[in-house]
Amino acid sequence: MFVIGERINGMFDDVKKGIENRDASIVQQVAREQIECGADALDINVGTAKGKAMENMLWLIETVQEVTDLPLCIDTTKYDVMSEALKACKTPAIINSSKSTEDELDKYVPLAVSNGASLIALTIDKSGVPSNADSRVAMGATIVTKAMEHGLDITDLYIDPVILPVNVAPKQPVAVMETLRQLRLLSDPPPKFILGLSNVSQSCKLRSLINSTYLVMAISAGLDGAIMDPTDRELMEAGITAELLMEKQIYCDDYIAAYLGNR
Amino acid sequence: MFVIGERINGMFDDVKKGIENRDASIVQQVAREQIECGADALDINVGTAKGKAMENMLWLIETVQEVTDLPLCIDTTKYDVMSEALKACKTPAIINSSKSTEDELDKYVPLAVSNGASLIALTIDKSGVPSNADSRVAMGATIVTKAMEHGLDITDLYIDPVILPVNVAPKQPVAVMETLRQLRLLSDPPPKFILGLSNVSQSCKLRSLINSTYLVMAISAGLDGAIMDPTDRELMEAGITAELLMEKQIYCDDYIAAYLGNR
Repeated sequence: MFVIGERINGMFDDVKKGIENRDASIVQQVAREQIECGADALDINVGTAKGKAMENMLWLIETVQEVTDLPLCIDTTKYDVMSEALKACKTPAIINSSKSTEDELDKYVPLAVSNGASLIALTIDKSGVPSNADSRVAMGATIVTKAMEHGLDITDLYIDPVILPVNVAPKQPVAVMETLRQLRLLSDPPPKFILGLSNVSQSCKLRSLINSTYLVMAISAGLDGAIMDPTDRELMEAGITAELLMEKQIYCDDYIAAYLGNR
Repeated sequence: MFVIGERINGMFDDVKKGIENRDASIVQQVAREQIECGADALDINVGTAKGKAMENMLWLIETVQEVTDLPLCIDTTKYDVMSEALKACKTPAIINSSKSTEDELDKYVPLAVSNGASLIALTIDKSGVPSNADSRVAMGATIVTKAMEHGLDITDLYIDPVILPVNVAPKQPVAVMETLRQLRLLSDPPPKFILGLSNVSQSCKLRSLINSTYLVMAISAGLDGAIMDPTDRELMEAGITAELLMEKQIYCDDYIAAYLGNR
């Protein structure tokens, strides 16, 4: 399971305050916690913090890189911020994200290639998030085609089939799983599949339970990882156990400790 | 989710003692606990309790029926015990179980029909549990054919594709899910699909975690219910949430309470 820690995001009050006050200790603490809990990469998003997005992003990257050399997942919709952020990353980064329109892919795939970065591409086009699996699969095909056209190694490509909150879009959890099953067959080797997991439980009451339940189901449909909260212990245990049952991990009595220790 | 409570089984020490001492209070307490936690039916198995299987079974049925009119799931390999037990059940019972050999199905399907009972048929033949999905699917087809031949309503048929412990049979969790996906397409309406869930974690350390994770995955592959422990709250919550994400339940903030209350 490839875990991109979601917590370094200015949408969270503590991180927002850390950014606005240039308080490195807050941000670095959140980074350390996620790493200790098993994050493989860290999402970096300035969110709604006051100040210029470019300056905030470059400060965040510098601050986080003082405590880790894990890959950073640069999360911004601004192309210029993305472009500068990638140059500031010491470890090959992950671009988060491109939509699956041809014009965006024609910008972001070459950006990934020239920076040695990976790319997360969302099954979203000008009309937004599709309501069914078929449209998501068609967008996935466009993404893979564009990756090949511009020379991005398929193993550096992540497709995110975009999960929506279950309380307002109840058919989407099934549609996303169907998308995963179909898109895995698109190329050999397939790209990797991830989700912005927490979105499934947006504005729901039992968020951790819904997140972990959907993580398990999505892994059984072919999900490789997620942007999620690694400090949620039950969520991590559910994901690790799902991979065990999919035979992606070998059973031993202490398989969770073994998984977390062998990173 | 159709939950058959697994706890009234002489393999558990408390129930074994209850049977051997003809102590109704122990058995009735276990029955009540499972019902309060959401069981839809109760498995009844004399296990390894001393004494004659027939007498133990009839006492168990009588004792449990003093506190509930839920369907009982009569769990014995002895045909004569099954036959007498069905007569003692006041509510239409569930036969647990027939193998999928033609000679067993030719005995148990008519027994179900003549008693107005439901039937659980296992994908097990003379060679045991198959190692792959294809053989399970072939056995499922035999089961459905025999049910139709003898006039058992397909909605009274439960197929159990038999999960084995993940620590000794690591490929089986995936094989069983593949079986569920294929067998659901076999007839319209399809039979119901259940599992003896706890078997997946036999001799494992984190049993509840493995059980609930596999329940979620199997529900996403088409499982309708399980013989399981309804007093395991996390297991029940995982199953209810899986059904929510499969759009079998409607979301409301208190969907778990709503599910458990609307039974």
